[in-house]
Amino acid sequence: MTVKHAVDVEANDVLNAKDTKIQVLISSREGPNFALRKFSMQRDGGMPRHTNTVEHEQYVLRGEASITIGEEIHHVKAGDVVFIPEGVVHSYQNTGEEPFEFLCIIPNKDDKVTVVDASC
Amino acid sequence: MTVKHAVDVEANDVLNAKDTKIQVLISSREGPNFALRKFSMQRDGGMPRHTNTVEHEQYVLRGEASITIGEEIHHVKAGDVVFIPEGVVHSYQNTGEEPFEFLCIIPNKDDKVTVVDASC
Repeated sequence: MTVKHAVDVEANDVLNAKDTKIQVLISSREGPNFALRKFSMQRDGGMPRHTNTVEHEQYVLRGEASITIGEEIHHVKAGDVVFIPEGVVHSYQNTGEEPFEFLCIIPNKDDKVTVVDASC
Repeated sequence: MTVKHAVDVEANDVLNAKDTKIQVLISSREGPNFALRKFSMQRDGGMPRHTNTVEHEQYVLRGEASITIGEEIHHVKAGDVVFIPEGVVHSYQNTGEEPFEFLCIIPNKDDKVTVVDASC
């Protein structure tokens, strides 16, 4: 691939999340070192407290949300940048009236997801 | 770092480019595997034909541009996704009325930039 439009990329439900879709914009097969994904969380959607075995680098495209990272709670909106180290418990809750959309980049390494608390 | 707002990140001129700034949103010191940068190219701005020794994964945030990748010319706009393999000649020209803004992620490896043709 060289160029594609995000709306043309298949969207799939995110396991263990509420009203949240993922699009793999550039997969680990296309990019040699990392994958670029877009998450879209509908109003009242969220993802429960969980850990990943890889870090996340994120950029908020639209909307607003509350994100917990470890013991901290952050209120984020479009233009905010988020770094979640590997292994740190985190969660998301859309707190706005519109969809909460963000990019999330992860390295091409095995990512094991462990849900800590199934409630969003 | 965990959360920061993109507008608070220092913007620096891009060498060899016209009216283009770069902000390193998550640096190679902050992220263990890759760096997240934001480029802002003013109206009529651009970057000449050049190569990098690392690949680029990009997401267009705003505006429109003409991007050459190898022998191909692509017209891109907000929501488009761009992959530029390492070593492939590429260039950018803002073709719209507003700033052209995009995210560009690169791996934490030495990036040698070679300008092939200094005209944008």
